[in-house]
Amino acid sequence: MAQYIYSFENGDGKNKKLLGGKGANLCEMKKIGLPVPDGFTITTEACTAYYTNDKALGAELEAEVFEHINQLEKVMNKTFGSTEDPLLVSVRSGAAISMPGMMDTVLNLGLNDDAVIGLAKLTENERFAYDCYRRFIQMFSDVVLEIQKFHFDRALDALKTKQGVEKDVDLTAESLKALVETYKEIVLKQTKQPFPQDPKEQLLMAIEAVFRSWNNNRAIVYRNLNNIPHNIGTAVNVQSMVFGNMGDTSGTGVAFTRNPSTGENAVFGEFLMNAQGEDVVAGIRTPQPVSELEKVMPEVYGEFMETLATLEHHYLDMQDVEFTIERSKLYFLQTRTGKRTAKAAMKIAVDMVSDGIISKEEAIMRVDPKQIDALLHPTFDEKALEEATVITKGLPASPGAASGRVFFNSEDVVAQKEKGVKTILVRTETSPEDIEGMVAAEGIITARGGMTSHAAVVARGMGKCCVAGCGDVRVDEVNKVFYVYGTTYREGDFISVDGNTGTIYEGQLNTREVEMSGDFGLFMSWADEIRTLKIRTNADNPRDSRQAVDFGAEGIGLCRTEHMFFEEERIPIVREMILSKNIDERQEALERLLPFQKEDFIGIFEVMAPRPVTIRLLDPPLHEFLPHLDEDIEKLAEDMRISFKELKQTVEELKEFNPMLGHRGCRLAITYPEIYEMQARAIFEAVVAVVKSGGETPVLEVMIPLVGHEKELSLLRALVIETGERVLEEAGLQLDFKVGTMIEVPRAALIADDIAKHADFFSFGTNDLTQMTLGFSRDDAGKFIGEYIHKEVFERDPFASIDIKGVGKLMRMAKKLGRSVKPDLKLGICGEHGGEPDSIAFCHELGFDYVSCSPFRVPIARLAAAQAAIREKA
Amino acid sequence: MAQYIYSFENGDGKNKKLLGGKGANLCEMKKIGLPVPDGFTITTEACTAYYTNDKALGAELEAEVFEHINQLEKVMNKTFGSTEDPLLVSVRSGAAISMPGMMDTVLNLGLNDDAVIGLAKLTENERFAYDCYRRFIQMFSDVVLEIQKFHFDRALDALKTKQGVEKDVDLTAESLKALVETYKEIVLKQTKQPFPQDPKEQLLMAIEAVFRSWNNNRAIVYRNLNNIPHNIGTAVNVQSMVFGNMGDTSGTGVAFTRNPSTGENAVFGEFLMNAQGEDVVAGIRTPQPVSELEKVMPEVYGEFMETLATLEHHYLDMQDVEFTIERSKLYFLQTRTGKRTAKAAMKIAVDMVSDGIISKEEAIMRVDPKQIDALLHPTFDEKALEEATVITKGLPASPGAASGRVFFNSEDVVAQKEKGVKTILVRTETSPEDIEGMVAAEGIITARGGMTSHAAVVARGMGKCCVAGCGDVRVDEVNKVFYVYGTTYREGDFISVDGNTGTIYEGQLNTREVEMSGDFGLFMSWADEIRTLKIRTNADNPRDSRQAVDFGAEGIGLCRTEHMFFEEERIPIVREMILSKNIDERQEALERLLPFQKEDFIGIFEVMAPRPVTIRLLDPPLHEFLPHLDEDIEKLAEDMRISFKELKQTVEELKEFNPMLGHRGCRLAITYPEIYEMQARAIFEAVVAVVKSGGETPVLEVMIPLVGHEKELSLLRALVIETGERVLEEAGLQLDFKVGTMIEVPRAALIADDIAKHADFFSFGTNDLTQMTLGFSRDDAGKFIGEYIHKEVFERDPFASIDIKGVGKLMRMAKKLGRSVKPDLKLGICGEHGGEPDSIAFCHELGFDYVSCSPFRVPIARLAAAQAAIREKA
Repeated sequence: MAQYIYSFENGDGKNKKLLGGKGANLCEMKKIGLPVPDGFTITTEACTAYYTNDKALGAELEAEVFEHINQLEKVMNKTFGSTEDPLLVSVRSGAAISMPGMMDTVLNLGLNDDAVIGLAKLTENERFAYDCYRRFIQMFSDVVLEIQKFHFDRALDALKTKQGVEKDVDLTAESLKALVETYKEIVLKQTKQPFPQDPKEQLLMAIEAVFRSWNNNRAIVYRNLNNIPHNIGTAVNVQSMVFGNMGDTSGTGVAFTRNPSTGENAVFGEFLMNAQGEDVVAGIRTPQPVSELEKVMPEVYGEFMETLATLEHHYLDMQDVEFTIERSKLYFLQTRTGKRTAKAAMKIAVDMVSDGIISKEEAIMRVDPKQIDALLHPTFDEKALEEATVITKGLPASPGAASGRVFFNSEDVVAQKEKGVKTILVRTETSPEDIEGMVAAEGIITARGGMTSHAAVVARGMGKCCVAGCGDVRVDEVNKVFYVYGTTYREGDFISVDGNTGTIYEGQLNTREVEMSGDFGLFMSWADEIRTLKIRTNADNPRDSRQAVDFGAEGIGLCRTEHMFFEEERIPIVREMILSKNIDERQEALERLLPFQKEDFIGIFEVMAPRPVTIRLLDPPLHEFLPHLDEDIEKLAEDMRISFKELKQTVEELKEFNPMLGHRGCRLAITYPEIYEMQARAIFEAVVAVVKSGGETPVLEVMIPLVGHEKELSLLRALVIETGERVLEEAGLQLDFKVGTMIEVPRAALIADDIAKHADFFSFGTNDLTQMTLGFSRDDAGKFIGEYIHKEVFERDPFASIDIKGVGKLMRMAKKLGRSVKPDLKLGICGEHGGEPDSIAFCHELGFDYVSCSPFRVPIARLAAAQAAIREKA
Repeated sequence: MAQYIYSFENGDGKNKKLLGGKGANLCEMKKIGLPVPDGFTITTEACTAYYTNDKALGAELEAEVFEHINQLEKVMNKTFGSTEDPLLVSVRSGAAISMPGMMDTVLNLGLNDDAVIGLAKLTENERFAYDCYRRFIQMFSDVVLEIQKFHFDRALDALKTKQGVEKDVDLTAESLKALVETYKEIVLKQTKQPFPQDPKEQLLMAIEAVFRSWNNNRAIVYRNLNNIPHNIGTAVNVQSMVFGNMGDTSGTGVAFTRNPSTGENAVFGEFLMNAQGEDVVAGIRTPQPVSELEKVMPEVYGEFMETLATLEHHYLDMQDVEFTIERSKLYFLQTRTGKRTAKAAMKIAVDMVSDGIISKEEAIMRVDPKQIDALLHPTFDEKALEEATVITKGLPASPGAASGRVFFNSEDVVAQKEKGVKTILVRTETSPEDIEGMVAAEGIITARGGMTSHAAVVARGMGKCCVAGCGDVRVDEVNKVFYVYGTTYREGDFISVDGNTGTIYEGQLNTREVEMSGDFGLFMSWADEIRTLKIRTNADNPRDSRQAVDFGAEGIGLCRTEHMFFEEERIPIVREMILSKNIDERQEALERLLPFQKEDFIGIFEVMAPRPVTIRLLDPPLHEFLPHLDEDIEKLAEDMRISFKELKQTVEELKEFNPMLGHRGCRLAITYPEIYEMQARAIFEAVVAVVKSGGETPVLEVMIPLVGHEKELSLLRALVIETGERVLEEAGLQLDFKVGTMIEVPRAALIADDIAKHADFFSFGTNDLTQMTLGFSRDDAGKFIGEYIHKEVFERDPFASIDIKGVGKLMRMAKKLGRSVKPDLKLGICGEHGGEPDSIAFCHELGFDYVSCSPFRVPIARLAAAQAAIREKA
């Protein structure tokens, strides 16, 4: 039989898997000689055994529990149920991975009709003893016996009314004694059993209740949200009680070894004298800063500060502790690695490295990449938030915080911007036509769409705050109002958008702007030293490129040329091109587009050179550039001086059943090579212009999208190279450039050896590759992906983090096949996944050269790449 | 240096690759001692060398040609350009794979100002000699010198006018002499060179012209259409001329050793006395049946019949020969395997087997599976076709022939059918809502959509003739007319649809009905003996099931349950189910659907048992069952007594950007398990009903569509099994049934080992697998697939024949992974590819258990499977 119980003296403080986090830390503290009330830990394996054993503790475990209780009685020189000096214990859950507040705790276990007398003697406070007892009955009944709380609340209220008092504290010892009797009657009535008087029975019942709480709803939801396995169980810690409320030489508090908000290297905490832990939390009395303890109990304070230093030194990280002083004796009830803000995490890591406490690698591993984002975006002032009225919640689609007036379409937003009015763009969903409005608005709200909807992707790319998929919002774009249940919000109303939390508030809220401290730069430079993956960015214009370079991007991994087509001056020409009836008309329109594209590329090259720039040729289906509503078609027909009927028919003809799998990407160029030819000319003419004007020589990579067959690539590669060489030759220039392809169609991955023959690089378009490999339309999957995650079909949204088993298998295959032909084939990724830490780790594992992500994700990616490199060495 | 020329005596009659088909056959005939005019063959390698040699013959080839001409002069005892007995030759192309009429031929080469005198002497006919000469100049000028024909036609017309004659034959020898001079002047004027008088120069020029003709436009298009490689070149045959027009003891003709139309074992052919080959073809004189030759020249006839017998016996197949009699001497100019109708092919194969000439295996290999289809469908009477007016052409989407009155929607077609009126349904494109009309119509025409559009797929499934994608047709469904350029066709007009050729005719044409002869049954029984693949069918109702069993289906591989949802009584309930606001309402609607589904299954089981039936649970997205046009939504809202606005909103909410990748297949059942539960109940209750009523026990396989993750399958498999066991238990029955899945999402193929753990079988849905692997929407790919095939990106439409390199790789992977877990995992295919011979061969190679295809493709599949088995052994 396995050993299911370890006393704190004997447990292995490193084995969190077996003892849970709390249990392991208690053992560890005991081991390094810190004052920890004695007790023992029942292992997570016992919990698992409980579940496999049809939810029974089993005789062996029970025997082991009693043996440890006997030991505890001896060590503490106290006895369960004693009327003189009763042993009281706490029973707490403690899983291997922290799940704060998700499971149950029972305090003061051991109290019964006898022990309460002992407790009164010990504390010389009968009122306190009975108050403990009635609280214990209530807590035990709730947690263990599962009796609903209102029964006890009603009895308490009735008693107070009877006694004519308002507060609990005004009840006398006698009243509380009577209350205990009433409570016991409630238990008898509800469970048909008297309240258990045997402390050992109480203990077994409490242990079982903690085991059960592992599978309560809260806990399951929490584990789903945090990707914690469901089969690892919780440990149970049984610890002798100490009391902070035994008079003026007792007290209790919580503390951090450093400031968890700023990271400052100074103990930060609060305490209350003559109080129990729950009083600190309840907020009835105002706790004092922990520094005040020096005045109250200088010796205890000295020991306290020394112990904190020991703990931090032992764990080599900032600790979050709970402590209790019982009659001038200091006890530590818990220690754990302290949660901290991103800013604090950064500062603590940097300080600890400069103090020689940890290595740079350890520092890098200490900061969660996901936290970094918070450093790059404004947030609402915390004070302001406390008083703000919440309108609704949606998905935190793009971080940041902004206030402004509500407007419902791009034109209005742009017009307001010109007047200097700050706006929030509110739409049912956005489409590429909304780009200008999205640029001009302070923040964006959509009623539909998920974390990877158009609005979300584009907003993240811009670093603009966005809340998407606000299911409760009904947008009436025609009448320029939106409804949230009964309430109506009109054009011009002020609202505030918190993209960090997904919350929408009424009115204007103060924001705190981004502070890029020196710690950040230093910390990120360590990440840069360590990582081997290059980090590039997805950027389509000089502004985003500049932003990304500021954030540390080493090149552009994806420059989407179509975004340039949507701008006001250009879209009419693009439409003429699409509606042209023959190749001559199309050539003519393309000729007029060329200077615009060239100008764009010049701007980008000027920012980026000598960093590499990967330009993807036109990708979306042509119908995306045409209007779809009759009224817009009518307007365009007028502008273009063609008949509505004709234009409508073209729009209808171009419409596709599944545009995702339609006439787009390189398929456009197989049918209309002149489009890519124009783009190639614009690119190379831009290179020439930059070089001729004395700028640094651009490092150019041209990328062909949506390739599935080697012939597509070989034909279009030839087109790009011929066009490029012609332009360069005319200018008398030589340039070393690359032509490569996206790997985003499953077939391309399957035949990557053939594709590689014509490619200087592969860039994995994991958005589309995920769509096609899983058969999930990103725009439609919102309808079922929630249910899929709820039913644990997928653990995580495959559009957020690469589906390693499926999509990852194709990526691995493509890498192997591609490099079998060209061992030095450059590999990268430019989907949304390029900024997601687990996906970045996977790319590192595959031996990719770079990942590319939106500018605001570049720092996250730099850190994640460094962590992947460290993990690989470990 | 390679040997580039073989005399007919020396060439290897088996080596068609080197000598071309015609050359090899000439050598072979020579070898077995048949009377063939002497000559030689220039190899296909010489042609390839010509192209790699910058289109020059080269001195070595020229020397070899002259050497062989010298030999020929010796053997024939004739001399090039002789005024006494000139050697004249024909120069003909002859590729390894027959390309009839695609390349060029020159006859009577060797004629010049001297030789024409010799020819006149020999034939004792000066007029004939000069007529030959002027024809030779014209032919040589056209083929070799590339002078446009009209120059010569004009000169001829001018001469006739001058002479006051109407017909060529009325021109005198003197006139023709003058015409020869005029022709030579034309040549001089057009080419700045005199007409070449040196026969050797003529010969080299003619050889080069034949080489060039390999790459003329016609030939390239033909090769593309017939999947013939472009780099294999043509051989050139130089053969001494013989003349069938040297008087009453000369003649010429063509013949088949058996009847190519019926297959009857009797020589079939025609001849003309005193005529050249072109006279037979030109149709100026009416040829006589070859049997008449017996009366005219009994000895020659005897030799002729004997030779034909020799030839057929030698080649072991029906032959198609050209022959010439020159002054009572019989010559054979060509023999080749004769083309034949499907019916003839079948009869000849069966006769040859019963005569012990060939084996069953050889017989099976002799019939092209694609031909079989013609035996299963009506065709138009050939006579009727000759006089019919063509309206337009489209894609031959589903074979058969039918006439009827034009109608434009399902309701009208159904109403007419009830009145006994035969109709043709004409639509821009069809959707599932048109099913009833498609059933009721005689034939279907669509203006849009390809070979795998809805109309095409459904029509083929029904065995109904359909012409799809008639690009010139504009359908105005509102006004019930269609236009083809200027012409208008109205509701009620008669038209005729030829699904075999894709042609639409005006008026009513007579059809020839299907004759299923005894030969067919016997032949197919041999195929069944030989093949190892099982052949199943895709059928959704008893009618199609019956049809498929008649055609030899051994089970149902795909029964689509959604087709049953569209019928008139059911669709309102389906819509209620979709529009239900909660699970109770949905359950209630499902409860009312259940009896219908159950009834369907009973009908199918009764037809099929004890053959296996694979039932696929609901697959399409729910919005397919709702109307999309405002007027239809309004009508439905009225029927359902809900507001238009509410219904419209639901329709909008259910709409998807990419329905192909949307909320469909098993995803529906992950979100609404009650749908599959109802279907499972209906299936098992149907089984119970059949068994209880004394029917044969159904062999049931339940199939879960669109699985991409093992969890989807494990959850839904459990649902089906639990539901089924409950129904069976209540009925006190036991049944061995299978639950399996479609492999149609690429991810499923990638993780097929995990999927296989929960599957009793895999059925590859190659339509969807192709869509997702290639990223081609089947409904949209029509916009670019033509260009893709034209530019040789794909050799064939991947929706017609499996893309073996890409999709096939996934299939191979899935097979390997799946069988690694379950070595006896049953594998099949149920996409459109299941009826395509090359795809069937691939499934055979992969070791699949069965293919499933529409009923009318079952015989094709049986034959193709047998051929694959034979090829594997070879």
